[in-house]
Amino acid sequence: MKIAITGKGGVGKTTLAGTLARLFAKEGHSVLAIDADPDANLASAIGIGPEVFQTLTPFSKMKELAKERTGAEDGYGTFFRLNPKVDDLPEEFCIEHAGVKLLAMGTIDQGGSGCVCPENTLIKRLMQHLLVERDEVVIMDMEAGIEHLGRGTAESVDALIVVVEPGRRSIQTAHQIKGLAKDIGIERVFLVASKLQNPEDLAFLEAQLPEFSFLGGVGFSEAIKEADMKGISLADGPLEILAQFITIKEALTAKLK
Amino acid sequence: MKIAITGKGGVGKTTLAGTLARLFAKEGHSVLAIDADPDANLASAIGIGPEVFQTLTPFSKMKELAKERTGAEDGYGTFFRLNPKVDDLPEEFCIEHAGVKLLAMGTIDQGGSGCVCPENTLIKRLMQHLLVERDEVVIMDMEAGIEHLGRGTAESVDALIVVVEPGRRSIQTAHQIKGLAKDIGIERVFLVASKLQNPEDLAFLEAQLPEFSFLGGVGFSEAIKEADMKGISLADGPLEILAQFITIKEALTAKLK
Repeated sequence: MKIAITGKGGVGKTTLAGTLARLFAKEGHSVLAIDADPDANLASAIGIGPEVFQTLTPFSKMKELAKERTGAEDGYGTFFRLNPKVDDLPEEFCIEHAGVKLLAMGTIDQGGSGCVCPENTLIKRLMQHLLVERDEVVIMDMEAGIEHLGRGTAESVDALIVVVEPGRRSIQTAHQIKGLAKDIGIERVFLVASKLQNPEDLAFLEAQLPEFSFLGGVGFSEAIKEADMKGISLADGPLEILAQFITIKEALTAKLK
Repeated sequence: MKIAITGKGGVGKTTLAGTLARLFAKEGHSVLAIDADPDANLASAIGIGPEVFQTLTPFSKMKELAKERTGAEDGYGTFFRLNPKVDDLPEEFCIEHAGVKLLAMGTIDQGGSGCVCPENTLIKRLMQHLLVERDEVVIMDMEAGIEHLGRGTAESVDALIVVVEPGRRSIQTAHQIKGLAKDIGIERVFLVASKLQNPEDLAFLEAQLPEFSFLGGVGFSEAIKEADMKGISLADGPLEILAQFITIKEALTAKLK
């Protein structure tokens, strides 16, 4: 299955993406995690240290390689059609850690150098052509906000998970995402609540977002902030927090069956 | 002066932009606030209710008007050259509230409809040509993350304020912003700390970001979350919180003198 994770900035998308990737891997799935946010660090949420991450070639360089190998200008469309399996991805663009294969789009190298639309087209093509076997899971951590939905980056995913925290703007973003997802043909849009400080927070979110299917919630916790600051994956973190993510993963698996 | 506010998603950019705009207006400045984030709601942080905000024509529609009035394809370049003052902005694109004039870029109308690069070019042109008088203040709330710096949207601002919370990724974003800002020629990059839970948080940020000039900090507070949920501007909120924003505004004014 192909899953994309989205939501307003700062709600915990990357943390959820990284932890889910690790949980699916723990269960024996072959997992490909895609970092499609030029401003995030999915590697750290998976538990990959900066020294290892620096050895990875950003996926945006794939354009040159694809052009070289296919001779075509928009070489990566052709490349992915000819090599549509996860194992076909050139090794230099992947790091493997604890059963998760990571692919990172790369960040913005220089100010004023242009937009990242070509990079988003690259990810879109990859998602379109990637054949996902029964035991494979692809998890994409998307850019904050809604712009990527305008660009249709997530067009070919099986499900979209929107992360939402108890705040007006985060709820507003969730509503917009739902509408935009429908436009590009994604029917399965799920919700994960985050930074819950009390049971009323969850009730508030459920009341504000009745049209969504909730997968579960994650409580506000100093331990999560600490793990983020130390670059530790929550899959290796405190068990009471891990339990919340396991519940979310189980709910997702059940709904996608 | 022209100021742009940026930072990782969810750190409090919009809250700072809206509150600063209101404070400068309270002091007698003529203030133009620009909402350049398709996923934010600067209106609400200024204290403009949704019923009034809905009457505003999104600034992205300016393209058509500019083409009509100038006859040129990239009509807005010409339009802003011919009409370079804040008062020249067509009234339908502006709402005024408590002395703040708001201009909103608009959101993404449809999934898969393309990127918002043309809208960003529009804002870039506006910022380039806008002549700002001595008593005028322009405050732009930028998109989360760093993509807009790749596109050079903030190229012509006098200062960039980066909002940062005590978290690794937020700090990482601040470092990236500093580098990208230098590339596009912005020398004055200031920092505002947010969501501080204790004095150690501020000390941690200062230690991690020694090359920045700090304007001040805002403590973590339930009252801020509540104001956001109710759509109340912090300029009309609790005084002990307002005081923190006043300190930031004073520091900014002093540094820009």
